[in-house]
Amino acid sequence: MYVEQATREQLQQWHKELTTNHQSFVAGGLNLDLTRGKPSASQLSLANDLDGALKGNYIADDGTDTRNYGGIDGLPGMKALAADILGVKAEDILVGGNSSLTLMYFSALFGWQFGFTGPTSAWRNEDKVKFLCPVPGYDRHFAICEELGIEMVNVPMDDNGPDMDVVESLVRNDQSIKGIWCVPKYSNPTGCIYSAETVERLANLGTIAADNFRIFYDNAYVVHDLTDDPAELPNIMDYCRKAGTEDSVLQFGSTSKVTFAGAGVAFMAASAVNLKAMKNHLGIATIGPDKVNQLRHLRVISNVQQLRAHMIKHAELLKPRFACVLDHLQKNFADSDLGSWSTPEGGYFISFDTRPGLASEVVKLAAEAGVKLTPAGATFPYGKDPQDCNIRLAPSFPTVEDIDKAMAVFCNSVKLASVSQRLQAG
Amino acid sequence: MYVEQATREQLQQWHKELTTNHQSFVAGGLNLDLTRGKPSASQLSLANDLDGALKGNYIADDGTDTRNYGGIDGLPGMKALAADILGVKAEDILVGGNSSLTLMYFSALFGWQFGFTGPTSAWRNEDKVKFLCPVPGYDRHFAICEELGIEMVNVPMDDNGPDMDVVESLVRNDQSIKGIWCVPKYSNPTGCIYSAETVERLANLGTIAADNFRIFYDNAYVVHDLTDDPAELPNIMDYCRKAGTEDSVLQFGSTSKVTFAGAGVAFMAASAVNLKAMKNHLGIATIGPDKVNQLRHLRVISNVQQLRAHMIKHAELLKPRFACVLDHLQKNFADSDLGSWSTPEGGYFISFDTRPGLASEVVKLAAEAGVKLTPAGATFPYGKDPQDCNIRLAPSFPTVEDIDKAMAVFCNSVKLASVSQRLQAG
Repeated sequence: MYVEQATREQLQQWHKELTTNHQSFVAGGLNLDLTRGKPSASQLSLANDLDGALKGNYIADDGTDTRNYGGIDGLPGMKALAADILGVKAEDILVGGNSSLTLMYFSALFGWQFGFTGPTSAWRNEDKVKFLCPVPGYDRHFAICEELGIEMVNVPMDDNGPDMDVVESLVRNDQSIKGIWCVPKYSNPTGCIYSAETVERLANLGTIAADNFRIFYDNAYVVHDLTDDPAELPNIMDYCRKAGTEDSVLQFGSTSKVTFAGAGVAFMAASAVNLKAMKNHLGIATIGPDKVNQLRHLRVISNVQQLRAHMIKHAELLKPRFACVLDHLQKNFADSDLGSWSTPEGGYFISFDTRPGLASEVVKLAAEAGVKLTPAGATFPYGKDPQDCNIRLAPSFPTVEDIDKAMAVFCNSVKLASVSQRLQAG
Repeated sequence: MYVEQATREQLQQWHKELTTNHQSFVAGGLNLDLTRGKPSASQLSLANDLDGALKGNYIADDGTDTRNYGGIDGLPGMKALAADILGVKAEDILVGGNSSLTLMYFSALFGWQFGFTGPTSAWRNEDKVKFLCPVPGYDRHFAICEELGIEMVNVPMDDNGPDMDVVESLVRNDQSIKGIWCVPKYSNPTGCIYSAETVERLANLGTIAADNFRIFYDNAYVVHDLTDDPAELPNIMDYCRKAGTEDSVLQFGSTSKVTFAGAGVAFMAASAVNLKAMKNHLGIATIGPDKVNQLRHLRVISNVQQLRAHMIKHAELLKPRFACVLDHLQKNFADSDLGSWSTPEGGYFISFDTRPGLASEVVKLAAEAGVKLTPAGATFPYGKDPQDCNIRLAPSFPTVEDIDKAMAVFCNSVKLASVSQRLQAG
């Protein structure tokens, strides 16, 4: 279907058919949800051995009684595992609670309020503080900036990650830019993996950026591959060491989409300077992370090899779901001018771009037909997609059968919105 | 031993004997620790059934899959249990992660940065913000204030809680006072229980205090009785409802000293207004608390009756430890002018006051003899005990045998410091 060159007659004919479809969907009373990057119950069940894994032995290998107070930065064993996941040394790791988002929030908060290198480095001392936000991106990152009053600047993404020409130009010319949000592997939502050049140029930003600049590097999907031969994300800290910019990167990860989404183990990797600041302030804010849960995780997943084997089971559950979405998109839109989409090899999302100005309408039509989509604009700072075209599809949670139904609705909604727009344009 | 009226000769004789004792302790190479309010391994083992409690069933009574994302304020079942513990309704509860300290930190932070009732209510808008700190008190409360630059004002404590004449006068006359820290039951470290009059007058503060005043009511030891017939703490929310001051109190509690110190469940109780603000901002800062751990707790401790039965087992382990400390104090100091102490009926601490100016010296002498005590001053804001007399003794963690040894050192240290001081005073 090509609406651009279609005759008015053809458009009217399509409109009639698509509206009929739409009405039958509405009458069908579906109640489906493609909004959240939530693991399915089957995925969660892969980690059901966690509860009971300790078999009464709560003492970690290093002798720590995990039940008691103490240890602001995690068990040595969990640090070692997290280090292997993120490609750093165990001494670079701080283990948190069940939420890497909280580690990001605290990092942003401490950077804002206290500074990573003392009070004079606190962002709140600046007249204005900005973060670069590659778009489309993750709404919860943007919410942290909005909460702290940090101004967000959109930066375009391509298949290699953020447009680094734009990033470098902005960073070089605007001293108020103090950070950038990155999801370097299977980016949320486009699914791209940052290229070696992008990673190297990110690592080098510390040499041209304003003081107290920090890259928030959310490696949420680092082991979340969907293919047998996944691409490797180049190691940013290797480049940082060459450039002497180790202090400019804060890396984050978790087992939320490895074990339990709400009861996993979060961690971050950072330089000694940054970890010292984090630990100083976390020591005020918490009695320390849940070490019992860390030990449970170590008893079930002791090393990266076991982790990768575990992730293959996730991939087996996720692959047919992604395939279903992509199959619908391919069949409906490959031979069309109605939209474009990503074909990710990992992560949790498929990013779809409608014709300009249609994302809100598609989301509205789908909702009428009982299919909940991520709100249009959610993938942009302040919820404002300048083109109103990006929609994030999250196929992990529903069954393949439900995804199949939901995608039929989605595709009809895209077509109906596109045809209606062309008709209105006259 | 009375040093006040002792002759110089008598003092010199004592000094000689006590120094000999001290030297033999030093030579003994002890390595004991009376600093932290940590449960002992035996106490922690009382909750060893937690891991494995789910037996593969991760679904809560309300149908929630606890493994997945979702639920910023906790499982309904955990809210109900927390409500019974704190004497409020389930709808007044927000369940957190493993640390009530984090809930307090976030409460103070959100009050400071965002305000509980919108931006204009944020404390950071004020020229100066002060909190009242009943002393001696809990160093981690004071650390939160210090972190945020909130000025702390000492208020004396007696057996009924804070001196409410002083509190009311300060609150009435100083609009910069925005909060007060309270540990109303088995206060840390004095062990007192706030009287009904104190609790009522606290509840009424909201009628005379500046706007945006909040009582941080840390009910950490609410079920931590050491006697068979424990005193009841009057319910502050009952008084608040009478006074129309429900928004002025934030209550905190946890199972840290019920189940696992580092892997328990924390919660807070507050008015709808305050909970709304907390949830709004926590929704930015976290994916939500660990619901799996909440469910584990509910499976092991379903209601307050089971909780109280569980706490009796704790009391059995704690009582001989407290008795050992009190026995030493009684034998050494009942018939003396060397110090006074509390005889708590619950909680985790015994508070000892030396003669003025001696706490630091006692801590130093004990350290020389291999007994680590809470640093002098730790129970006061900024670590400054104006009288340098308060020492917090924490007997929960060591064995009775070790407490016995440590207390022999402690008592000798108090005597030696007291006699030395009198000798120096000439």
